[in-house]
Amino acid sequence: MDPLRIGIAGLGTVGAGTVEVLQKHGALIAARAGREIEITAVSARSKTLDRGFSIEDFDWYDDPTLMAEAENIDLVVELIGGSDGVAEALVENALAAGKHVVTANKALIAHHGNELAALAEKNNAALYCEAAVAGGIPILKSLREGMAANAVTRVYGILNGTCNYILTEMRDTGRSFEDVLEEAQKLGFAESDPTFDVDGIDTAHKLAILSALSFGTKVDFDGIHIEGIRAIASIDMEFAEELGYGIKLLGIASMNDGVVEQRVHPCMVPIDAPINHVEGSYNAVVADGDFVDTVFLEGRGAGGGPTASAVIADILDIARGARVPLFGVPVAQLANTATRDMNQHYGAYYVRFNVVDRIGVFADISRALADHHVSMESVLQRSRDPEQIVPVVMTMHETDEGALRNTIEQITAMDAVVEPPVVIRIETF
Amino acid sequence: MDPLRIGIAGLGTVGAGTVEVLQKHGALIAARAGREIEITAVSARSKTLDRGFSIEDFDWYDDPTLMAEAENIDLVVELIGGSDGVAEALVENALAAGKHVVTANKALIAHHGNELAALAEKNNAALYCEAAVAGGIPILKSLREGMAANAVTRVYGILNGTCNYILTEMRDTGRSFEDVLEEAQKLGFAESDPTFDVDGIDTAHKLAILSALSFGTKVDFDGIHIEGIRAIASIDMEFAEELGYGIKLLGIASMNDGVVEQRVHPCMVPIDAPINHVEGSYNAVVADGDFVDTVFLEGRGAGGGPTASAVIADILDIARGARVPLFGVPVAQLANTATRDMNQHYGAYYVRFNVVDRIGVFADISRALADHHVSMESVLQRSRDPEQIVPVVMTMHETDEGALRNTIEQITAMDAVVEPPVVIRIETF
Repeated sequence: MDPLRIGIAGLGTVGAGTVEVLQKHGALIAARAGREIEITAVSARSKTLDRGFSIEDFDWYDDPTLMAEAENIDLVVELIGGSDGVAEALVENALAAGKHVVTANKALIAHHGNELAALAEKNNAALYCEAAVAGGIPILKSLREGMAANAVTRVYGILNGTCNYILTEMRDTGRSFEDVLEEAQKLGFAESDPTFDVDGIDTAHKLAILSALSFGTKVDFDGIHIEGIRAIASIDMEFAEELGYGIKLLGIASMNDGVVEQRVHPCMVPIDAPINHVEGSYNAVVADGDFVDTVFLEGRGAGGGPTASAVIADILDIARGARVPLFGVPVAQLANTATRDMNQHYGAYYVRFNVVDRIGVFADISRALADHHVSMESVLQRSRDPEQIVPVVMTMHETDEGALRNTIEQITAMDAVVEPPVVIRIETF
Repeated sequence: MDPLRIGIAGLGTVGAGTVEVLQKHGALIAARAGREIEITAVSARSKTLDRGFSIEDFDWYDDPTLMAEAENIDLVVELIGGSDGVAEALVENALAAGKHVVTANKALIAHHGNELAALAEKNNAALYCEAAVAGGIPILKSLREGMAANAVTRVYGILNGTCNYILTEMRDTGRSFEDVLEEAQKLGFAESDPTFDVDGIDTAHKLAILSALSFGTKVDFDGIHIEGIRAIASIDMEFAEELGYGIKLLGIASMNDGVVEQRVHPCMVPIDAPINHVEGSYNAVVADGDFVDTVFLEGRGAGGGPTASAVIADILDIARGARVPLFGVPVAQLANTATRDMNQHYGAYYVRFNVVDRIGVFADISRALADHHVSMESVLQRSRDPEQIVPVVMTMHETDEGALRNTIEQITAMDAVVEPPVVIRIETF
């Protein structure tokens, strides 16, 4: 069979890793693909940067979007990143020209996945993005193919290694969020602008893709409730442990009675739950299918090697002739499902108020809870020095989030409550 | 596209589950497959047993091997079981007739996988067996496709839910192996003849398949060193915990310098290792790839729903046109790799001797270790009543198993040593 000829746009860590793996394992990969995978063209910002291989063997493109017109490219690997701009133009043009596309770009697929998947179908091109979610973990393939006999009811995971690293360090060392973030930035584990990671946006990009694939619904990034980890204090880590929980930033999507709920926020998870054992920069995804029950996958969520591994798995699939739609079924068959508003979310909660310790405060708080029919499960208070500011921690039995928010609003308005409370949802997997 | 017409041979838990899922999720599965999956024929021992669905809709075969000749069957699902006999005849005949085959039969593939995969290739038929290994966990697909960019260096896992259930119960309740096995048999978790499970043979069948797929080597069941869990006593569970380990029955295959090592035996694993958190009847597989690093998958290893989920994933792949070779590359390209003899295994060990507690015994044992250059890491002794039989537990630093065996032989021959010792290999993942 003819070689599959690929053009790689973007030669950062993942792009350079992809070239490295294809060169090192050329024979192995050809045996598995049943044909050669040949890099014919590359594009990057710098032509002169030393990446450990010679770019002389490949056609060079200053403008990657021109790869879409190249006669000697069957498949474009988009590793530029960003939800719009050059990456979007390249993928659109390549698909429109009938070229296959493999991308690691979660923002692009989260924002434009429906249109791009439809464009791919229209032009009989394959579009895959395994590397966009959870790096080296073959989670999209597992959902799309391995669990294809199931109606998936829930999918959730630790999808951002930076946040998981920060939370793990906070737990293990007792240090503050800011402190650990700064260190992570110095070590290169966090970006200089950490917004996408620590504010949950990166996790939400990935969750949007998981959700569409799991439930056969259109990608709906805007339907995701997103909170990051900036508000978590080391004292919350201590309280969590005392209550038998760990704190993880999770992306959670579930399908109940035809309504999808998509949310990204810090969660308290049982200390013994498998997801709580996912440490440092690892990622993990848990999927519940109605026949297979629960499947749990864990591995490296980032890095050149793991991400290149996922990119090449997609390339290999295409080389072997796979043409499964990006989201498991053709875009025309994806449902336009309403997303549940977070006020309708039903769950348990951890709430930490900072209050001035004086007589009657607790009675006022208790009355506010009762007024809104919110049922307290437990309360923890660290110290009792009159007129000092003390943390009061409560866990609430399952309740509607709307009721909880109204309660908290009422409590926060009290004179003795000195800061906005920290609210962490409790998940019992 | 025309429907894919399937014949199901064997209507036990998995076969009936397969019919149930195909009927319940017919529309969903057709959307994902891009075509209908139509059951045209079934075969089972009893035609009259109530399985919750009517067999009137399907052609009935008393002799399943005749399915191979049926005009209206494109794909045979073999769920009869057994490494030879009817199952083998059916699969051979079906493949020879150019029909695709999906099977959950680990014994068949472990013993005849090379020949059957070659027969499938020769006749342009697909042969898949996802359900044969770790039930609902999509591990074969993950290795064959998701990790296809990697040279896999090691794969190991908990592949038998019965053993894991027994070991988990022994740990949690302090009861004996016999006691827990008997209970498991009453509860239907263990067969009345538990040999295949508790003696490690079932695990070895699965490991043979994982090993071939991971390393691109011919299936070599006979090259597997197999030990079961009958020798594990509750006192070993206690000592393990004291030493910071859990005890799990693992199948482990590794590839080093072109030599494959395949072994099934109880292992001590670090108490914090993810594999040690796999509880009860769950299965898990861990694979190390040279670029993806470590990938960990956990889920249900048995049961009608999970196994049917895996069977149907294979059917769906075939319906979509997938024709990846069973072991990732054509049989002619699988290597004939030598298996390492266990005497050459290099690792750490836990050894429990039962000795009569008298002066000089410990000196004799120490001398035997020194004679064979085996280095002790730690020693535990529970009590010291002269002339009583007491357990003496030692852990050994990494050593050649041959040297260890010679040492143990010498120690076991001593008068004061009253029973064959229990030897458990220590793995540090």
